[in-house]
Amino acid sequence: MVLVTTSHKGKANVMTMSWHTMMDFEPPLVGCVISGRNYSFAALKATKECVLNIPSMKLAKQAVGVGNCSGNKLDKFKKFNLTPMPASMVVPPLIAECFANLECKVVNTRMVNKYNLFVLKVLKAWIDPGKKNPRTLHHLGRGAFMVAGRTIKLPSKKA
Amino acid sequence: MVLVTTSHKGKANVMTMSWHTMMDFEPPLVGCVISGRNYSFAALKATKECVLNIPSMKLAKQAVGVGNCSGNKLDKFKKFNLTPMPASMVVPPLIAECFANLECKVVNTRMVNKYNLFVLKVLKAWIDPGKKNPRTLHHLGRGAFMVAGRTIKLPSKKA
Repeated sequence: MVLVTTSHKGKANVMTMSWHTMMDFEPPLVGCVISGRNYSFAALKATKECVLNIPSMKLAKQAVGVGNCSGNKLDKFKKFNLTPMPASMVVPPLIAECFANLECKVVNTRMVNKYNLFVLKVLKAWIDPGKKNPRTLHHLGRGAFMVAGRTIKLPSKKA
Repeated sequence: MVLVTTSHKGKANVMTMSWHTMMDFEPPLVGCVISGRNYSFAALKATKECVLNIPSMKLAKQAVGVGNCSGNKLDKFKKFNLTPMPASMVVPPLIAECFANLECKVVNTRMVNKYNLFVLKVLKAWIDPGKKNPRTLHHLGRGAFMVAGRTIKLPSKKA
């Protein structure tokens, strides 16, 4: 689960996103499905910029709360005690409480109308070394979330 | 991590895939990034059919082994003791050892040339109720794999 920040007409917003995948390493590309029912959809389509903020399990309740309401009616940063911080290459803010933040721009919109799929290029990546062993959250559907378990090493030849 | 089976010119093959995302619920769509360097790429492009077989942690070594060699030169089912079983709606086989199998057809190839992204529609889904609490595997890169941890429930309003 990822928190996506956008900024449109001077107003920042944040939404949760469950459906995304890496698409390339160099340049780093991420494919993101963002429904047109989300208030952030129009902002991303118009400004072509966002930040992918990765919450750990400690932010689980806030992250799910963000996903249950619309930025159309309220300031979700205030409501959920999330701290916006300036990004360096895009207008949307980083969320200070997240352990990693990826500043992104939209590089392809050909699949937006049909599938709500945005192709993002990561321009800059931040990580908070003070947040040790962050456990990511993975939406299974219907209010169930898998918390990242242990990491194992296997001799993969692929990156 | 998912094992993708294809069948081309009478020969079945299997590869591992790390990059994929749900794209829609109804019909169920899955976006899959499959590099042109994979032997399966040509099979999928030509036949437009595959099965997504989901291995649990018990299959971790086999799944990574599958990813470290090419079906161009050997029969990976035999080499890794994977049992092919007939699917009901597509030609590529199910893998019996996996706890879930999704029979798929390619419904969109517009992003294949540029991004290696295939949009799949799931035609039929199988689950093995005898395999209890399967722990999925998630490729973190460089030979590291996250094993699915515990599941938590939070009051998400979204499916």
